[in-house]
Amino acid sequence: MAENEDLYAAQSSEPDTVTEITPKSEDFSRWYIDIVRRAELGDYTPVRGCMVIRPYGYALWENSRDRLDARLKATGHQNAYFPMFIPESLLKKEAEHVEGFAPEVAWVTHGGDEPLEERLAVRPTSEAIICSLYSKWVKSWRDLPLLINQWANIVRWEKVTKFFLRTLEFLWQEGHTVHATEQEAEEETLRILEIYRDFMESDLAIPVITGLKSESEKFAGALRTYTLEAMMGDGRALQAGTSHNLGQNFAKAFNIRFEDQDQQLKYAWTTSWGVTTRLMGALIMAHGDDKGLMLPPKVAPYQVVIVPIPGKHFTESVLPAARSLQDMLTAEGFRVHLDAREEYTPGWKYNEWELRGVPVRAEIGPRDVGKGQAVLVRRDNREKAFVPLDQIPDEVRALLDSLQQSMYDRAKQFMGDQTRQVSDYETFGEIMSGPRGFIEAGWCGDSDCENTIQEETRATIRCLPSGREAPAGSCVRCDNPAKHLAIFAKAY
Amino acid sequence: MAENEDLYAAQSSEPDTVTEITPKSEDFSRWYIDIVRRAELGDYTPVRGCMVIRPYGYALWENSRDRLDARLKATGHQNAYFPMFIPESLLKKEAEHVEGFAPEVAWVTHGGDEPLEERLAVRPTSEAIICSLYSKWVKSWRDLPLLINQWANIVRWEKVTKFFLRTLEFLWQEGHTVHATEQEAEEETLRILEIYRDFMESDLAIPVITGLKSESEKFAGALRTYTLEAMMGDGRALQAGTSHNLGQNFAKAFNIRFEDQDQQLKYAWTTSWGVTTRLMGALIMAHGDDKGLMLPPKVAPYQVVIVPIPGKHFTESVLPAARSLQDMLTAEGFRVHLDAREEYTPGWKYNEWELRGVPVRAEIGPRDVGKGQAVLVRRDNREKAFVPLDQIPDEVRALLDSLQQSMYDRAKQFMGDQTRQVSDYETFGEIMSGPRGFIEAGWCGDSDCENTIQEETRATIRCLPSGREAPAGSCVRCDNPAKHLAIFAKAY
Repeated sequence: MAENEDLYAAQSSEPDTVTEITPKSEDFSRWYIDIVRRAELGDYTPVRGCMVIRPYGYALWENSRDRLDARLKATGHQNAYFPMFIPESLLKKEAEHVEGFAPEVAWVTHGGDEPLEERLAVRPTSEAIICSLYSKWVKSWRDLPLLINQWANIVRWEKVTKFFLRTLEFLWQEGHTVHATEQEAEEETLRILEIYRDFMESDLAIPVITGLKSESEKFAGALRTYTLEAMMGDGRALQAGTSHNLGQNFAKAFNIRFEDQDQQLKYAWTTSWGVTTRLMGALIMAHGDDKGLMLPPKVAPYQVVIVPIPGKHFTESVLPAARSLQDMLTAEGFRVHLDAREEYTPGWKYNEWELRGVPVRAEIGPRDVGKGQAVLVRRDNREKAFVPLDQIPDEVRALLDSLQQSMYDRAKQFMGDQTRQVSDYETFGEIMSGPRGFIEAGWCGDSDCENTIQEETRATIRCLPSGREAPAGSCVRCDNPAKHLAIFAKAY
Repeated sequence: MAENEDLYAAQSSEPDTVTEITPKSEDFSRWYIDIVRRAELGDYTPVRGCMVIRPYGYALWENSRDRLDARLKATGHQNAYFPMFIPESLLKKEAEHVEGFAPEVAWVTHGGDEPLEERLAVRPTSEAIICSLYSKWVKSWRDLPLLINQWANIVRWEKVTKFFLRTLEFLWQEGHTVHATEQEAEEETLRILEIYRDFMESDLAIPVITGLKSESEKFAGALRTYTLEAMMGDGRALQAGTSHNLGQNFAKAFNIRFEDQDQQLKYAWTTSWGVTTRLMGALIMAHGDDKGLMLPPKVAPYQVVIVPIPGKHFTESVLPAARSLQDMLTAEGFRVHLDAREEYTPGWKYNEWELRGVPVRAEIGPRDVGKGQAVLVRRDNREKAFVPLDQIPDEVRALLDSLQQSMYDRAKQFMGDQTRQVSDYETFGEIMSGPRGFIEAGWCGDSDCENTIQEETRATIRCLPSGREAPAGSCVRCDNPAKHLAIFAKAY
């Protein structure tokens, strides 16, 4: 299938429901769509380019959101809510910013039957509206730093869309902070980068490479953009989050000034940063296998699914035992689901919950009840263990920890295996048209050269990784000396 | 001031910051605006009719949201996220529905530089988009009930706006459920009404009257609308939430059908229900006093504020004692703020945190440190108590419980005092142009009569209260017999 097909264009020919998942090795893109729909993470809608996030997908987002939100609050950030509409004149105040976003803006032109005097942008990002308020709130050094985050919906009028990864409307958090000095703004930008890294690696089990974006890939209006790049199961990169040092560009455009301790009126320094629901796509593509989803225990909607096995004394003994197991695990703080439906067989349920990526399955049948045990099966390697009931909470805890760690290790190993040092352009091209993955190569720093590489290979510079020096020798594409080590990849 | 002035129209003449609060008794409307701005709950924005919810106001919303969300999840509802844009043709499928909402819709007509083939409504409510997906997901009786809730932003193009109570954009939750039978749909509608009542009374300390809306006040497209009506400090009513039994109207318009256990294909029954950020306005107006906000402990952003008193050994002993008190209370699960700013006096801080409605203040000075105690002051009656440090967690818990209960009792008492049984129309008019409040009166059931009452007195029927019978005698306005007991009030 085409690499950048519009998944919504295919909708009219899609069946209402998906019954089987295309194997990952056969067609990665089809596998991805099948999982989204079959596992009920999301679905098509009658609105072009807009998806619905179904309860199972939304629970995954809620769990992820809550864990990131706790980290942001622990570092002094507070949530707020700003208007979704941005008057056109306001959006135009920062020149590079509007140039970058104008082509993607959805415009509201009428309210009820009345045409508006000035049309309103549906926020493609909120710097303009937020900075216009910060210019009113920030008066003195005492008001700084100002550390505000917002969880909101965003609209960008994309031509080509894909479930979670690129949709006209999506959900995100956007932090917007104001600082007294350049150094504090840079420290904040990097603090957030580190919070994101820890969140992605510890909670989502997705290893990332951090570094600077090149000039042509940085945020419209930023001084510097830092990024976190993850590798998906097909060897493509996914930009998992960005943190921007905006310098004084927005402070000057929106007049954010403060009286400093030396009584001088100064322009402030601002940052902004965000991650989006595309991380749900990353979870699917970083961890899934031919059986379906595989979800990291820390964010999985259900960490344990209990399947009672039909047979003798089902209602009198097996079902009550399953319920009491559910109660015990719930009381211990686990997220547990009991699948007691009678219209499906245990085998069907095993497949179903493997497909939906539940980390641990607990089976309990008549013989297990007699022996005071249950069978625990982990999602990744399907290892089985017969565990006495009173040891189940401890064993589940150990299994979830172990699974969380192995998922990360496996993804890290894969990223390492798919990262190649390349110095000649022919090899570069072969890799990009073959196995893909990350290529570490020298780059001259010239954006024309960067563009040529993209035109010829469809690979882009994902980042200039932090703390890495330029390799000796010349740029991978031209004869000029390498100024930077760059990581190239084809990206979502 | 005018009763329904547009607060945003006044913006250009408003100062950037508010320093003093107008007394409540002097000008309730001005008092309300002053509190919103001075307590930093919200502020004006450059977008007509749209407010910003500042961190202190948003924390209040988050706490409220989380407590309601937990109740909805405990009763089997799951969250999801549906597109914000609704194609015009979809919105038009249910005739009464579009008629009710079309005048308030904001329309997106352009994406980037391209005019759209079909314009898109920014959701004024989501029945249309959600039902269009339900028609795809619901196939069999096994899929029912379908119990989904969404937390989202909503846009209604209002002419006249007021902080929190009526803004072009606001936040809410909207539940949308599908059931196999009429009875189950009605049970769900009433179950939600009861969840809302408990949430408002137990968590927000706001007593409510529940009942049916009259035909002219019900939701556009509904069979029946149940409402919860609260009383504000100026004797006006505020509609605090609604729960709609939609009958089969939307199921028929959007073709939501299922194969029942008897193999027959049947139209389903649906409900929808919501509460919004206007509840934050209700919190201000139900509980505030001349000093400012008064927040119920269960949802207050900070339950305790600690003010260390300057003096001898401040840095060596008082501040560390304050910090250790903060740690102790935080560890016990309280939401605590330590105001250690040195540029403000204790007296200034007392006023500040009373104004911001913090339930309990803890003062600790050099003498208190010596005695191993702190001074606790509660926000409502300003009673002081000297409490040994090791008893503070228990005492704070008791104070918060007591305060939560007294706030509810006081509001309940006020609502009772301001509710009058009236049978003659002259008295009715005098009350509505005087003290206002709720009037319980007989009503003939005729909507012309209802409209006449509104035109003449500006009072509307808030609800036909549950479980109350029509009074003997005639309608309060006409000579026809009273069919219902109705509660009338001027409303926000």
